Amino acid sequence: MKELLAKEIAARVKDGQVIGLGSGSTTELAIVEIGKRIQAEGISVKGVPTSLRSANVARAAGIEVLDPETEVEIDWAFDGADEVDPQLNLIKGGGGCHTKEKIVARRAGGIVVLVTEEKLVETLGSKFDLPIECIASAKSYVEKELLNLGAKEVSVRKSSETYGPARTESGNIIIDAKFSPLDASLESKINSITGVVENGLFVGLSKEVLVAQGGGVRVLEAK
Amino acid sequence: MKELLAKEIAARVKDGQVIGLGSGSTTELAIVEIGKRIQAEGISVKGVPTSLRSANVARAAGIEVLDPETEVEIDWAFDGADEVDPQLNLIKGGGGCHTKEKIVARRAGGIVVLVTEEKLVETLGSKFDLPIECIASAKSYVEKELLNLGAKEVSVRKSSETYGPARTESGNIIIDAKFSPLDASLESKINSITGVVENGLFVGLSKEVLVAQGGGVRVLEAK
Repeated sequence: MKELLAKEIAARVKDGQVIGLGSGSTTELAIVEIGKRIQAEGISVKGVPTSLRSANVARAAGIEVLDPETEVEIDWAFDGADEVDPQLNLIKGGGGCHTKEKIVARRAGGIVVLVTEEKLVETLGSKFDLPIECIASAKSYVEKELLNLGAKEVSVRKSSETYGPARTESGNIIIDAKFSPLDASLESKINSITGVVENGLFVGLSKEVLVAQGGGVRVLEAK
Repeated sequence: MKELLAKEIAARVKDGQVIGLGSGSTTELAIVEIGKRIQAEGISVKGVPTSLRSANVARAAGIEVLDPETEVEIDWAFDGADEVDPQLNLIKGGGGCHTKEKIVARRAGGIVVLVTEEKLVETLGSKFDLPIECIASAKSYVEKELLNLGAKEVSVRKSSETYGPARTESGNIIIDAKFSPLDASLESKINSITGVVENGLFVGLSKEVLVAQGGGVRVLEAK
């Protein structure tokens, strides 16, 4: 199913474009598909990655990987999501890359989202907790403020490989917060908490959502 | 003048307290004064620092320096400021430490602010630009959004020691933005911009402001 999404993304790539590359398993498949077109057709593609892992996959695929700090215009960007609601708002951050993902999404003026059907929900927060990247020394304060904002539960994401919390590429921790329902207004409220770097609520950033469904790809367009 | 402030802070320290230690020249003098009391009276003081430099000064002064990530209660905290308005709201971040300073201020439930008279202004933004810590890859997007919020000028703080921008201890850049007037509501609006880590507007965080003035210390209390 994810292969269909990957091929659809690869088909949209034009020679010479600068593309924002999301992170996650579906996104990785799409990067690999782009690589096949580069090899078969000799087109040239540049990518602004949202994680070290995406950068490495892209480099291996023959995409010229740009330093995200380079001030280049991004033609368009694609990425996965953990939940998509009917307004095409998203929860992202299951992989802990949502800060870099959101920066690239803003720079590109939005993203093309790739999901399989089970990611579609009526209300955000139904299945996934909201990931919040946070500076470690602010942990207790941020947890308290999240509870004040209505979170039913908060927990620091644990590392399964090291003793202690999982760390983002920027060295910060991730607090997963259960909000149900997760109102869109929480995006800015949570970012206003001292110590929060960025949360995984993406409001108004989906240009289109491509859904792998019943052997085909259904396209949901933003209104 | 700053010596008076430093002595006033040291006089307030009680044996066994955990104190949030700000950053900057006046704060440093106060840390040194606390060290004199430790040496003279044998009291024990622990500190949660807001910068590596404050940590080192504190350690040299005999303060037991705690890792800021340690989840300890902070009894009280003191810090300097770049501007103080009549509501005791502050601009901080001339030294680029405002993110860690604000986290400690929140954890301590506010700060005792140390300033010399010339830091008092009628309106924030009169003399100082607002420092905004920002993830480097979001630079252009954040600059554009700051201008949308009414900034008259924005500039990335340059390093005078290295080729390129100044970096915070967290590896981020600082955008100095001229807002005049600088409305208190901008604190959360700016933090809601994707890529912004924290800005130097401190609203409602001053417990007291100690002003070195005319050979004495004047105390301004929060209403």
